[in-house]
Amino acid sequence: MMKVTLIGAGNLATQLGKSLKKAGIIICQVYSRTESSAKILGELLDTEWLTDVTLLNDEADIYIFSVKDSALCELIPKICKGREDKLFLHTAGSMPMTCFAGVAQHYGVFYPMQTFSKTKDVSFEKIPVFIEGDSAGTESIIRRFSGKLSKRVITLSSADRKYLHLAAVWACNFSNYCYSVASDILSEHGIPFNVMLPLINETTEKIHKISPKDAQTGPAVRGDRNVMSQQLKLMNGRGDLQELYRILSQGINPLIGNPVLDKNN
Amino acid sequence: MMKVTLIGAGNLATQLGKSLKKAGIIICQVYSRTESSAKILGELLDTEWLTDVTLLNDEADIYIFSVKDSALCELIPKICKGREDKLFLHTAGSMPMTCFAGVAQHYGVFYPMQTFSKTKDVSFEKIPVFIEGDSAGTESIIRRFSGKLSKRVITLSSADRKYLHLAAVWACNFSNYCYSVASDILSEHGIPFNVMLPLINETTEKIHKISPKDAQTGPAVRGDRNVMSQQLKLMNGRGDLQELYRILSQGINPLIGNPVLDKNN
Repeated sequence: MMKVTLIGAGNLATQLGKSLKKAGIIICQVYSRTESSAKILGELLDTEWLTDVTLLNDEADIYIFSVKDSALCELIPKICKGREDKLFLHTAGSMPMTCFAGVAQHYGVFYPMQTFSKTKDVSFEKIPVFIEGDSAGTESIIRRFSGKLSKRVITLSSADRKYLHLAAVWACNFSNYCYSVASDILSEHGIPFNVMLPLINETTEKIHKISPKDAQTGPAVRGDRNVMSQQLKLMNGRGDLQELYRILSQGINPLIGNPVLDKNN
Repeated sequence: MMKVTLIGAGNLATQLGKSLKKAGIIICQVYSRTESSAKILGELLDTEWLTDVTLLNDEADIYIFSVKDSALCELIPKICKGREDKLFLHTAGSMPMTCFAGVAQHYGVFYPMQTFSKTKDVSFEKIPVFIEGDSAGTESIIRRFSGKLSKRVITLSSADRKYLHLAAVWACNFSNYCYSVASDILSEHGIPFNVMLPLINETTEKIHKISPKDAQTGPAVRGDRNVMSQQLKLMNGRGDLQELYRILSQGINPLIGNPVLDKNN
């Protein structure tokens, strides 16, 4: 039976805590710098919560850090020191595993490829979890632990995890910004954003079956300079969007160049 | 009972034809410049197909143009002339309704907000269809016709339809390009693209409930300059992606500026 203490009570920690509990894993304590967050998650998981790291006890086998990158570096020495027999994990995409080196003896990474919010529950079962351990032995413990939550556990180095995180920014954060631009354009013309949802659903459904490159549609990929030139004009006064439109279109179809996408057009 | 002739046999015409037939509407003829396309769709819909506009007959009540913008302008006079009692519709986002003016007497637009492919069937029922007619009378005929396919028929002017089309390019084509960039980054590091699918699903699920702006996550929106600076370095040698990353991040969070996103950083 594994026992876990959660360091952090944000979106990821909340969903992780709920899923761990469901999987029968005991949550010993929940720590957060913010009292309200600590209290909410502690009560949700029916466990002790605290805002003072010196009150952390040694009951857990695994201490999981789900905090901002800056807080991570600050908390690691404070928490790992004196607990050399414990396993320490962090969940950060862009932080190397070695941020534990020299402070902890058994450590690694548990990086679930998903976006989390406190209120919307997600099932960890289908979330790919990328793990890394300081040694083969540690990795196998992390793999066993992760396997209790997810059906897809993949070993990945810190160096490659950075690229995975970068890819996630493109696939999730930047695509969402594209939706946001669409939403702004529609609202300026009195059209509700929800008319886009069937199109967005279909777009994402397609890439479950074919590659995004093969699924690409629109004026850029078919080289429709007429439409592109018209659409650039519709964004007059929004130089940032015009610039994005140009670079995105050229990315989709490198054969498009001037004069259609000329800045002076 | 309405009878329709399809001008064009591409992705949209194929899905439209199938849906019309299902709705009990008779497809009189299918025209395409390309023999193979005309034949395939004609046989699929079990109707006459042709590649010579002079062979079009006058049996239909509605002639629907689903062809490239350039072909549309060329075909309209050839097909509308001598059929002054018929209704002519086009399905183009960026073409004004007035491309029929002076040539036809009854005309309008039927613009379904969806991306189509020949092989993947979609149900028109949930697709918002944007219509426009040369007069109130024509519009009401187009509304009745469209209502046989879709539960959501919305009147929209040609001027606003251009913005709708622009929004669709952002929501569908550009978000798909973001997936494509993610896919390239992953494949360079031996990671299969499908690890992104749960994240992509969740991202699009969120905007069914909250606005894209409220759903925004990632380093840019939380102002995490450290991660952004790191990620820009990971794209060294890909100036186009770095430029996109900078402008997208600043779009997400206008408070981010130099020095993190400085080109020389």
